[in-house]
Amino acid sequence: MSKSAQLIDYLMSHREVTNELAAKIDPDHYTFKPTPTSMEAQKLVNHILESTYTFARLANKQEPEKLFDEDDTADLTERAQEYTEATVKLLSKLTDEEFEQTLDVSHIFGKEMTAGQLLNMAIDHEINHKGNLFVYVREMGHTDLPMYVKA
Amino acid sequence: MSKSAQLIDYLMSHREVTNELAAKIDPDHYTFKPTPTSMEAQKLVNHILESTYTFARLANKQEPEKLFDEDDTADLTERAQEYTEATVKLLSKLTDEEFEQTLDVSHIFGKEMTAGQLLNMAIDHEINHKGNLFVYVREMGHTDLPMYVKA
Repeated sequence: MSKSAQLIDYLMSHREVTNELAAKIDPDHYTFKPTPTSMEAQKLVNHILESTYTFARLANKQEPEKLFDEDDTADLTERAQEYTEATVKLLSKLTDEEFEQTLDVSHIFGKEMTAGQLLNMAIDHEINHKGNLFVYVREMGHTDLPMYVKA
Repeated sequence: MSKSAQLIDYLMSHREVTNELAAKIDPDHYTFKPTPTSMEAQKLVNHILESTYTFARLANKQEPEKLFDEDDTADLTERAQEYTEATVKLLSKLTDEEFEQTLDVSHIFGKEMTAGQLLNMAIDHEINHKGNLFVYVREMGHTDLPMYVKA
């Protein structure tokens, strides 16, 4: 199994959960935040989707970009679907050799990393914020929540 | 660098944050939970510490054990310190070959895994619940919180 296929499996075992949580958020709750200093629910989901996509762009030596304009009215389910497809497409292009290549991301992270290290960090970042999101969604009244990872 | 040393570095980049959050929880907040169906703060921290230690025991082919009795009055900072030391000690014993060995953990996880796979899953589990904990600690009134991972 290629490194790319392994990484896509690993990402999707978490991304399916991210998307399932996002789908539970009613538009009335998009601006929900558990405390005044917290990120709003909608922003938290977008931050997860955009960050992992950005890491996949960087691993492909592409500049970051957003898939939706500021004023786009797409809901979280549409955004989740589009970002997930675009992220998987980028990851699927990476060869085993490219996973070992060092990327100059020191202007962003303060150090160089291989594409493989960067992408593992991307998934940790998603798991962390998905962990935040579980608490948000429970506070919105949902008690039937998925496991943190899909088998 | 041995696989064991790499994994300890990886775990500690998250465990230091877990412990920093745990230290912010005043005993008056030990039973805090954001919703009636949520885990209490103290139980959440114990669950993180005990789970990662259990995974390290399993990777060493040892049965799970708890380091504190049910009625022990040790606070979260003491528990965090003791579990962290014991976990690192167990991980430091693993040879590179042992990381590749398949463990029969199918009675717990429904499938066999190598020790390396099990330990990576352990860290993902910790990151997920640490992500929950960030929201709890912010709800207790703390706004000066660490990054989700130490550089």
